Amino acid sequence: MAAGTGDFGDIGGSTRTRLLRLLRDRGALSRAELADRLQVPRPRLLADLDALLQEELVQEAGPAASRGGRRSTLVTLAPSLRFAAVDLGATSINVEITDGRLEPVAAQAVTADIRSGPRAILQQVNEILSKFHAEGVYERLAAIGIGVPGPVSFRDGVPVSPPIMPGWDRFPVREILAREHGCPVVVDNDVNIMCVGERYGGVATSVDNLLFIKIGTGIGCGIQLGGEMYRGTDGSAGDIGHIQVDGHGPVCSCGNVGCLEALFGGAALARDATAAAKAGTSPALAERLRANGSVTARDVADGAAEGDVTCIRLIRDGGRRVGGVLAGLVSFINPSMIVIGGGLAGLGHILLAEIRSVVYHRSLPLATGNLPVVLSELGSRAGVVGAAVLASEVAYGQPS
Amino acid sequence: MAAGTGDFGDIGGSTRTRLLRLLRDRGALSRAELADRLQVPRPRLLADLDALLQEELVQEAGPAASRGGRRSTLVTLAPSLRFAAVDLGATSINVEITDGRLEPVAAQAVTADIRSGPRAILQQVNEILSKFHAEGVYERLAAIGIGVPGPVSFRDGVPVSPPIMPGWDRFPVREILAREHGCPVVVDNDVNIMCVGERYGGVATSVDNLLFIKIGTGIGCGIQLGGEMYRGTDGSAGDIGHIQVDGHGPVCSCGNVGCLEALFGGAALARDATAAAKAGTSPALAERLRANGSVTARDVADGAAEGDVTCIRLIRDGGRRVGGVLAGLVSFINPSMIVIGGGLAGLGHILLAEIRSVVYHRSLPLATGNLPVVLSELGSRAGVVGAAVLASEVAYGQPS
Repeated sequence: MAAGTGDFGDIGGSTRTRLLRLLRDRGALSRAELADRLQVPRPRLLADLDALLQEELVQEAGPAASRGGRRSTLVTLAPSLRFAAVDLGATSINVEITDGRLEPVAAQAVTADIRSGPRAILQQVNEILSKFHAEGVYERLAAIGIGVPGPVSFRDGVPVSPPIMPGWDRFPVREILAREHGCPVVVDNDVNIMCVGERYGGVATSVDNLLFIKIGTGIGCGIQLGGEMYRGTDGSAGDIGHIQVDGHGPVCSCGNVGCLEALFGGAALARDATAAAKAGTSPALAERLRANGSVTARDVADGAAEGDVTCIRLIRDGGRRVGGVLAGLVSFINPSMIVIGGGLAGLGHILLAEIRSVVYHRSLPLATGNLPVVLSELGSRAGVVGAAVLASEVAYGQPS
Repeated sequence: MAAGTGDFGDIGGSTRTRLLRLLRDRGALSRAELADRLQVPRPRLLADLDALLQEELVQEAGPAASRGGRRSTLVTLAPSLRFAAVDLGATSINVEITDGRLEPVAAQAVTADIRSGPRAILQQVNEILSKFHAEGVYERLAAIGIGVPGPVSFRDGVPVSPPIMPGWDRFPVREILAREHGCPVVVDNDVNIMCVGERYGGVATSVDNLLFIKIGTGIGCGIQLGGEMYRGTDGSAGDIGHIQVDGHGPVCSCGNVGCLEALFGGAALARDATAAAKAGTSPALAERLRANGSVTARDVADGAAEGDVTCIRLIRDGGRRVGGVLAGLVSFINPSMIVIGGGLAGLGHILLAEIRSVVYHRSLPLATGNLPVVLSELGSRAGVVGAAVLASEVAYGQPS
């Protein structure tokens, strides 16, 4: 059983794991309900529960509503249980502390430059965690889930040749955090944790074959097949930002020409918007360039909302590029749902409409007949939600 | 456990299933070796063996070589065990009868037009099987595996909206063959069975994440991830022939423009070769057009072997198209190996070199560092080998 699949508690894994997942996903349950749902012999359930009570992972929570006969006792996750969920972006650190049911009890977001290297970034993470600890948000952590903006060897818990993360290649992120905090740590790619989050607590709940497209500074894709995260042979699956979409397009940071990411995404959009502002084709962007000295993807979204034709065209051009790539992936992988997330999902329905139009037009009807293409519901929280899910999976999946 | 993964006998499934797979893949084994390899308590193994002996699925085959102590008896699959493997192409029917170890004991290939409809085609299949039966090739079949050239609902055993198979949509192929032959039947897409075959008995033995690219009249892709066949949400995964590669390209049979299949594949190559012959740009093709009244992919291969520049260019152009699509799929799915098969794999190393060049150039180093791109080893037999594997999986996986 791979960690972080967003499965419900009633399938897969040992009784202990299934029991903990069930309490995470359904809340307090009576011993009778647990026995019903888990379909295990009552003596075995009670033995597992006793062990978990001893470990202070679960506790009793009073009598359950009567179902006739003897009253059963409610069991719930220990209220002191805490997970840390960390989402490292190219320019940000998002941290949430959750309880055992993955409800956030504290959160902090700070700006940070991933290029400042692993020691500086992990120190910032530790400072945030220390502050929470000092404030009494947690006594000890049951597990940490962390996402980084680059390819990861999930098995080894290290980034692998991450293009925008100098100094991070094979840096022992898992080992160092585990030693520091004395708990299990799970490290994954940032897009993968968003995908896990959206399937667990967002618009894609229990979708079988899910593509989560993150359009931020760059573009990436999280892949869940048959309800399990798929990471590829080297952990680089979903790296769709470098699919070539225009053999005569601009040179990409990877050295090739015409990659999707070189044509759309936060960096490319800021570049094209600046050019439009300077060329005088967009009054909305020219005004913002004058006022702020630069223009961003946010300005394009605002310009489009005001009806600026160039801003709308920039978004539609980008949507068409993304849609073209997705149409190919739909033919190839025949997914059940596509979710669009990341910062540029804020470009909203102009972007979504263009992506949908191309996907539905270009893929075969059999693959698109029942295929929803929707915006992320969790937005900027998708990453930390997924990181918390991964943390809980590793904690609840530990052998007792 | 999905059928047809090409797994070896020593992992997954019930003892009975693992035992039968082991005898299929390793041949006669002693009771002692079986107990060692399957790691099950000896009494349970002996009980399972007794049941299989009763069912006449296995039989004893004399004493094993002594390992010291009491001599063990060799156990082997019953020599009368037979599977039928059927590979339906657009213009052909390939049938093999195999023994329990999937060794072919009889084979026949006939031309047939898939558009003549399911009743006519299945009657041809039944005639071939009847002939084998009359010749004593088999007494009864333990299972049938059959591949069809279009999308299949694997669960329901029916083709689903197959574009080149009029009359086959949701035709109950599995049900009809099962009733006729009194045995389990498994129906899959033709590219999928080739993929299963190549992983079981070809160049891709036990590869984790495998893409099998069939370039025949059309172009399709079989996908095995984590050693399991991946079929997609609607059974249409791998339909890469309709990925758009040129927005200004020729109209495809699917109604869109510039699909991969509209630019390369047997049909497109014959079209382009005919045009070249008529335009007088290729002496080799012009000569064949005069002699035979038409030119085919085979003629292009022969012309290229003779050094005809236009023939070489046609193959390289096609390879570049295929390579461009594969480069994107490599970035997306990060496979462990790509195998090129189907009729046009006969275009050989000119095609392969061009595909490799584009894939290695355009995908990121992390995903291509250890990625072999190779020709199918089983060639035209890949389909029947895979169909036999699927048949044995369904037969050996049946509860006793």
